[in-house]
Parts: sequence; C-alpha cells; structure tokens
Amino acid sequence: MNQQSNNFIFDVQTPWQDAGGGVVRQILGYNKDLMMVKVSFKKGQAGAMHSHPHSQVTYVASGKFSFTVDGVTQTVSAGDALFKQPGVEHGCVCLEDGILIDCFHPMRETFLPEP
Amino acid sequence: MNQQSNNFIFDVQTPWQDAGGGVVRQILGYNKDLMMVKVSFKKGQAGAMHSHPHSQVTYVASGKFSFTVDGVTQTVSAGDALFKQPGVEHGCVCLEDGILIDCFHPMRETFLPEP
Repeated sequence: MNQQSNNFIFDVQTPWQDAGGGVVRQILGYNKDLMMVKVSFKKGQAGAMHSHPHSQVTYVASGKFSFTVDGVTQTVSAGDALFKQPGVEHGCVCLEDGILIDCFHPMRETFLPEP
Repeated sequence: MNQQSNNFIFDVQTPWQDAGGGVVRQILGYNKDLMMVKVSFKKGQAGAMHSHPHSQVTYVASGKFSFTVDGVTQTVSAGDALFKQPGVEHGCVCLEDGILIDCFHPMRETFLPEP
C-alpha cells in the first residue's frame, strides 16, 4: 500500500470514490499519521451516525449541514468546523449542496484503493 | 493548556490571530494529535519557506497560490491540496486573495494562546 501521497494534489487529476448513499469523496494528501479527504454531498444526502478510533476535524468548505457530534445537533455552514475525539459518535445531513474537508489521525487505511 | 477544542467551531465566534506579514489565522478543531487551522491571505502576502517536525496537509479553500514544497514550485487553486512530510521545506505566495486550511499531526502547541 502506498503510504504517502504526492506533495501536490490537483482537483482535476484526483478520482472520486463512492462513499455510500450517493456521497462521493477524493483522497487528498496523506501519510500514515494524517489523511485529508474531500467529501461532496447533495442536499438530503447523509453521513450515517458512526464512530472510529481516529481523531477527526472537519471543515465546511461550502454548503450547509445539520451535524450531530456526541449527542448534540447544530447547523453548520461554510467556514465552520467540527472536532471529533476518537470513538465519539457523529453524523450529518446535508441541508444545502456542499463540500466537507475531513482530516484524520491516523490515516484511514481502508479509504485507499486496493493495491 | 487546553488540549482539546470544542466539538462545534463557528467561524463568527472564532478569533483571528496574527500569523505574520499581514496573514491571519483561526485555530479550528484540535487535540494533541491533530490540529486544523484556517489561514487567510491577501494577494502578495506570503508564507515564508520553513519546515517543522509535524506532518501537514493543506486544502486550498479559495484563491490562488504559488506553492513550493521540497524544491518544486506549482500554482494551486481552490479545490487543490498539498502534502508536506515532516521536515520538508515549504512556503507560498498568494496570487489571488484566498483561504488555506492547514492540518497538522501532532498539534502545533505554539499556535494556542498562552493560558
């Protein structure tokens, strides 16, 4: 498995993967300790409630989302951000088409294509 | 020192810090292993060449930048990203007003205000 991305990652050269429920994602930069992922939602699409042992921060690059983190639900818009400690339940519903930038520690190995 | 951010980080509630040379930044979500920072540049402002022991990924949320990573210079625009291994020299010049989303492993402790 490739454990390090290129240094320059261009949008138009980066494939989109199925992330479930119509949601799609691009794997941006990563090494074993850190991974950045761009996730594109259409209105009404959702990220189901889940948890993982990775620390996560999320930037709302565009759109509007109803986000639930650790039992609290708030509406977030472009420019806002979320933090999720390891193991914390979280999920979202897209209220207006938008892009989330997710960062994880350590990397999400299962997001990489099979070698 | 507070070693964990809130779960919800709202743009309008988050202070901007001086990042040098006119550049300003907001500290978004973080724990000891992961930190997300929003950095705002005006055209002509620069992030001087530097390196650090942290892994880093950067998302170009808006604008256009000339980025140098490990001796290679490329122009990146909204939607593109950069990856920097620990210790790699990197820097940028802003070509059109824009926002970068930087993520680090581990956190940048010196970015937090004094307790």
